[in-house]
Amino acid sequence: MPETHLLRRAALRNMLRERDLDALLITDLLNIRYLTGFTGSNAALLVHADDDDRTVFCTDGRYLTQSEHEVPDLERVIERASANAMAGRAGKDSQTYRRTGFESQHVTVEQLDSLAEAAGSGVELVRAPGRVEELRMIKDDEEVEALRMACAAADRALAQLVEQGGLRAGRTEREVARELENLMLDHGAADRAFESVVAAGPNSAIPHHRPSEAVLRAGDFVKLDFGALVDGYHSDMTRTLVLGQPADWQREIYDLVASAQAAGRAALRVGVAVTEVDATSRRVIEEAGHGDDFLHSLGHGVGLTLHEAPLLGKLGEGTLAAGMAVTVEPGVYLSGRGGVRIEDTLVVRDDDPELLTLTTKQLVAV
Amino acid sequence: MPETHLLRRAALRNMLRERDLDALLITDLLNIRYLTGFTGSNAALLVHADDDDRTVFCTDGRYLTQSEHEVPDLERVIERASANAMAGRAGKDSQTYRRTGFESQHVTVEQLDSLAEAAGSGVELVRAPGRVEELRMIKDDEEVEALRMACAAADRALAQLVEQGGLRAGRTEREVARELENLMLDHGAADRAFESVVAAGPNSAIPHHRPSEAVLRAGDFVKLDFGALVDGYHSDMTRTLVLGQPADWQREIYDLVASAQAAGRAALRVGVAVTEVDATSRRVIEEAGHGDDFLHSLGHGVGLTLHEAPLLGKLGEGTLAAGMAVTVEPGVYLSGRGGVRIEDTLVVRDDDPELLTLTTKQLVAV
Repeated sequence: MPETHLLRRAALRNMLRERDLDALLITDLLNIRYLTGFTGSNAALLVHADDDDRTVFCTDGRYLTQSEHEVPDLERVIERASANAMAGRAGKDSQTYRRTGFESQHVTVEQLDSLAEAAGSGVELVRAPGRVEELRMIKDDEEVEALRMACAAADRALAQLVEQGGLRAGRTEREVARELENLMLDHGAADRAFESVVAAGPNSAIPHHRPSEAVLRAGDFVKLDFGALVDGYHSDMTRTLVLGQPADWQREIYDLVASAQAAGRAALRVGVAVTEVDATSRRVIEEAGHGDDFLHSLGHGVGLTLHEAPLLGKLGEGTLAAGMAVTVEPGVYLSGRGGVRIEDTLVVRDDDPELLTLTTKQLVAV
Repeated sequence: MPETHLLRRAALRNMLRERDLDALLITDLLNIRYLTGFTGSNAALLVHADDDDRTVFCTDGRYLTQSEHEVPDLERVIERASANAMAGRAGKDSQTYRRTGFESQHVTVEQLDSLAEAAGSGVELVRAPGRVEELRMIKDDEEVEALRMACAAADRALAQLVEQGGLRAGRTEREVARELENLMLDHGAADRAFESVVAAGPNSAIPHHRPSEAVLRAGDFVKLDFGALVDGYHSDMTRTLVLGQPADWQREIYDLVASAQAAGRAALRVGVAVTEVDATSRRVIEEAGHGDDFLHSLGHGVGLTLHEAPLLGKLGEGTLAAGMAVTVEPGVYLSGRGGVRIEDTLVVRDDDPELLTLTTKQLVAV
């Protein structure tokens, strides 16, 4: 583990040198976790562009023991006001930390004042938004392995839910959600990755429906959008099933969404613009006359957060690169009747993308 | 519900007029929930100091239906970039919104740029940190009722856990935590309020131990720090039990912590400095020679977040007022042996504080 973090910090140092920064003060906890392995709730990290031996990690007394285990390879400072302490550290050696970047997309207006005061006039605090997030877009092997395990926990939980008859007429959406979430814990998840969507019948037409006391009935679509958390990484999968024999209209929109989803997956190629991936899948739905029933973006990056760059949507930026982990999740929602979404998590590769969510995408009648 | 929100916004408008602000742009989602009832993940609110009819709420298309139900009483704008849209709204009528406050403790350095651009040069964006949080310190009846229900769910879950033999030698901390959390859901919680602490034996000496595969053994202290979430409000309670007959040293530190906790509760009086509440309880532990074994603050405010103002600790500010909801949670931790923490959630009242967590504080041997 420490070696992984060493490599990530080395990549960050390259970035800092390219931007003529002497150092970067990192205050976002997920970015700190990514660069050090620390999982506590208070920390700051000061990375110098020249040498990893100069990296200083700071947390407070509650995490004395935990940080010894999680961050054995860095100089550690114990101080409650961690970010200010690290700004002060730069200030004490302002020749070496003359131009120090800060995470201006995370640091608040008030916080910047106290950082500047702690750093003193010898240090120029330079806006450096999104540097670590840029690195985090490309997942390394350890991250993909965590995503794989998270996706496997979700796959197995759904399989067992269906096998043990958890999806049947008469149960409430909330009951199904709880059983599914408990099964994910049984299969190795540390937690659910987000509040599950379990949406039955007309509720399946609501893209982000919260599980309610609504009862599953024969003939219903049941849409399940859920994920597991493993080592801090989130899985994200949606499947839509039918209770009993599917009606013609259900089969029709299911097949349409499945085709659009397959087209989206096939478009996941290195160098393709993220807007083009969205457009490729969307076109299938538009050509069938359901363009207005697909209201959201096609997908998003996933990792230490559930939603992160890149966005696969009309407002997305950039092109795909090997190692990006993304979801592909088109949907068609017919208000008052029902809706279908099919979602996978995949990793972009030099050839075909790697599918992490392995549950069948055939229309399953339970 | 809408009436509650109307009253809260009226209190906020008074605050704005006192500070010579024409309006406040609110971007923190919990503050928006407090002022409107909206529970979605994207919104902004523009409150004018003069008249509630001028309050404008903004969210995006995903929450069209939900916001109709949750925020029926305000003008609604549907726009993905909600905060910028509301800044732009102020800018279009810059005579009326000349001095518009923003939540500078939440707005990031980057975000302020885009707000300023959207507002245009006619609007002066004024730092206004912590205004809504100041209101939120004093809980109204509806909030106390939610806290009461959350505390009741936790009380009942622990009672049932003990009753059904959930606390017994041979189980792991993780198994106990899962059972306890599921029982809270059975008793009306929408979710757990935070990751439960279940710490057995020597682990009980770690203030914020995460449930592990460690096995409960006869003679162990078992420390349980857990809470339920109801209508967005968090309960927070710690109890420490013994598996089997308590040893003398266990009884001794238990009685000490119980005395300190009782002293802390008795000190919860309107007008008392928060530092004094901490000191009153801490003194009991210091006089017994265990001052160095009580490393954290005595307590904290609790409500829409688990930790909020006021802090009952050495660094806390201000005095207690009627309606504040706080925890009182002294602890003594003997490294390698075990620790005790006893924590209640209470509401400060004009006379005796109201105890919301009703589980016994007698030393329970299971």
